[in-house]
Amino acid sequence: MTEADIVSLVRNLALEAKQAARALARAKTTQKNAVLRRAAAALRGPAGDQVLTANQRDMEVGRELGLSEAMLDRLYLDRKRLDGVAADVESVVRLPDPVGQLEGLRDLESGIRAGRMSVPLGLIAMIYESRPNVTADAAALCIKSGNACVLRGGKEAFHSATAIAAIFEQALVESGLPARSVVLLPTTQREATLALLGLEGIVDLAIPRGGEGLIRFVVENAKVPVIKHYKGVCHVYVEASADYAKAERILINAKVQRPSACNAAETLLVDRAVAAEMLPRLCAAMIERKVELRGCEETRQLVPNVRLASDLDFDTEYNDFILNVRVVSGFEGALDHIARHGSLHTETILTEDYGKAERFLREVDASAVMVNASTRFNDGGQLGLGAEIGISTTKLHAYGPMGLNELCTKKWVVYGDGQIRA
Amino acid sequence: MTEADIVSLVRNLALEAKQAARALARAKTTQKNAVLRRAAAALRGPAGDQVLTANQRDMEVGRELGLSEAMLDRLYLDRKRLDGVAADVESVVRLPDPVGQLEGLRDLESGIRAGRMSVPLGLIAMIYESRPNVTADAAALCIKSGNACVLRGGKEAFHSATAIAAIFEQALVESGLPARSVVLLPTTQREATLALLGLEGIVDLAIPRGGEGLIRFVVENAKVPVIKHYKGVCHVYVEASADYAKAERILINAKVQRPSACNAAETLLVDRAVAAEMLPRLCAAMIERKVELRGCEETRQLVPNVRLASDLDFDTEYNDFILNVRVVSGFEGALDHIARHGSLHTETILTEDYGKAERFLREVDASAVMVNASTRFNDGGQLGLGAEIGISTTKLHAYGPMGLNELCTKKWVVYGDGQIRA
Repeated sequence: MTEADIVSLVRNLALEAKQAARALARAKTTQKNAVLRRAAAALRGPAGDQVLTANQRDMEVGRELGLSEAMLDRLYLDRKRLDGVAADVESVVRLPDPVGQLEGLRDLESGIRAGRMSVPLGLIAMIYESRPNVTADAAALCIKSGNACVLRGGKEAFHSATAIAAIFEQALVESGLPARSVVLLPTTQREATLALLGLEGIVDLAIPRGGEGLIRFVVENAKVPVIKHYKGVCHVYVEASADYAKAERILINAKVQRPSACNAAETLLVDRAVAAEMLPRLCAAMIERKVELRGCEETRQLVPNVRLASDLDFDTEYNDFILNVRVVSGFEGALDHIARHGSLHTETILTEDYGKAERFLREVDASAVMVNASTRFNDGGQLGLGAEIGISTTKLHAYGPMGLNELCTKKWVVYGDGQIRA
Repeated sequence: MTEADIVSLVRNLALEAKQAARALARAKTTQKNAVLRRAAAALRGPAGDQVLTANQRDMEVGRELGLSEAMLDRLYLDRKRLDGVAADVESVVRLPDPVGQLEGLRDLESGIRAGRMSVPLGLIAMIYESRPNVTADAAALCIKSGNACVLRGGKEAFHSATAIAAIFEQALVESGLPARSVVLLPTTQREATLALLGLEGIVDLAIPRGGEGLIRFVVENAKVPVIKHYKGVCHVYVEASADYAKAERILINAKVQRPSACNAAETLLVDRAVAAEMLPRLCAAMIERKVELRGCEETRQLVPNVRLASDLDFDTEYNDFILNVRVVSGFEGALDHIARHGSLHTETILTEDYGKAERFLREVDASAVMVNASTRFNDGGQLGLGAEIGISTTKLHAYGPMGLNELCTKKWVVYGDGQIRA
């Protein structure tokens, strides 16, 4: 295909999806749930076998291309994993439908009654990488929230994504909704992504999910609104009044439980006042768990054999068993460090001081700020949203995990009886 | 200045404002209100005279440049108008402070308590045209909502804007807040605007206000999030069951009360079932008020001497005494017309039919949808928000008028007692 062909193809598919969005926006909860139940049943049945066959092709191509074992593992599906994907779709059935909720309705002086109604955004573009489950998760969350979606999956998972998207298409049609409510782009070429990101007025929101490179590409090239997070450089700050046992337990959980998660901790900050007492023990707990430490000069004086951390290290999301450690000169020093190196993702303070706790919650700029709790709680499920489509550090529209409510907007509805403006 | 100098100047000013944003975010309500009271008092006093002198210079330059009378009138300030600007600033003092409001705090199964706290967005970039009052309105709303702002005013109002910004700077310093909380760019050159719009990670939100050309320029060139509306092509739809008296009253108000407003009506849609009965009378009421009509073929058969409306006319915001008129084939025909030609701004249906009213409210995509009320109610003041900084048809973050709450975001706050994730 020529570039012009690709642009025209993407535009036409998006226009069809936008048209489908009108039907989806007015679909009843039962109808949307029926789609999800049918899709989940199909994933558990013979259509699921076709997904597994398609996934084998992706795995073969991936091995030929020399993908790393970690990449191949992310790509891989078996019956058990696919049942997990189906279960995730079913869990969305159980979440409340956000569409049509009316809030703040009140009588105004002019005689009108006005409030805000939650309505779908319209058409969502998802741009993501190789995990095949994202195709199903994104489709399920968009359908339940009444949005159409155009999906641009990763090229490594192309066959798997195509088979999963076909299941949703079938489920939509069987439930009386337009097939084009969920569109998987038939090509993962760069030109197609660029065309999609340029569709201002058609695509209502683009959500990129993947590595920082992919996300920067989307932000640089989008004419449509984007919600994203680049990285999670999350801090655990041990304030002078911290309880040591809580601090150690939370640091271990935040760093070690799942280092690859974006809400895992990357940097430990310790107040100078308690550094001599707490820092060596915290570091020992890390070393015992095979965590490599990179520290400031003061840390290196307290703990032997720690490599010097660079400014770049303090900006890095390792996604690995590596932790930066820094001694800070009290509360202001910690807040300055977080303001400079934080990624607006998740920050936690360990403290027993009421005033410090309240100031941290008020003043630290991040999608989730916590007192005496693990950074790992910044997650849609853990915060009570149910499934999430991504996490936002954009501040606009959603800040933190995005669930079904965040895939909607609120329009004003006005009930009148002939009122005019004075 | 070279282009590199301008880029560096804008970046440095924005970084200073971003730094100021931290102080502003934690400022108490009384302190922020003190700034606004001081600024309003200054506008009413000798500093206000300096604004009027500066405005005379702008008017002289404007006349030399041959600005239209309408443009000059928009630019013009006298003591009475400036007192109005001061009164608007004072009205923001009386609005509740959105910062720090906590919603939905609840205990979760893990033992943490989590909720969402309203916090300032951070640094707002306002890009606007020639009305001098926008400088004061934007500064007041940003300060009250705890945001720093960088203002790029129109070149025609440069001296007036500079004098007004100086008043806010003084009021900030006298109230113990950073002078750089409000920064007016010292140049209106295109390169400066481009530099500002490229400051991803520094500028949290750009709000353009002005003509469609300015707004398209901002959207095309921004790397930072943008909230805007291009135009208001608002429809008054007279459904078959409409009460004629309400329809006429609302059409007159929507079209004639202030045609230059974005929430004024541009198109009248009338159901075929009642067209013969209602359309000629509605058109007569318009003609009586000097409104030029542009109609579809059926309209022209019902009303003599009406010019044929083109597809382009149906997409146009006239901001003038011109109205498109179209006969539609029932409810679906009206919704199709609005979906094709609407601007996501304001749509109203005239109907006495319960089902149609509810369907219109649910299904029409616009920042405000109304039943039996004038489109002119889509306004921050009329909807109970108090002052507005602009109106959004972007759907993301805010849909409709943006008041103080919409200049904030909601971050998650988590109260723990040592909890870790299982």
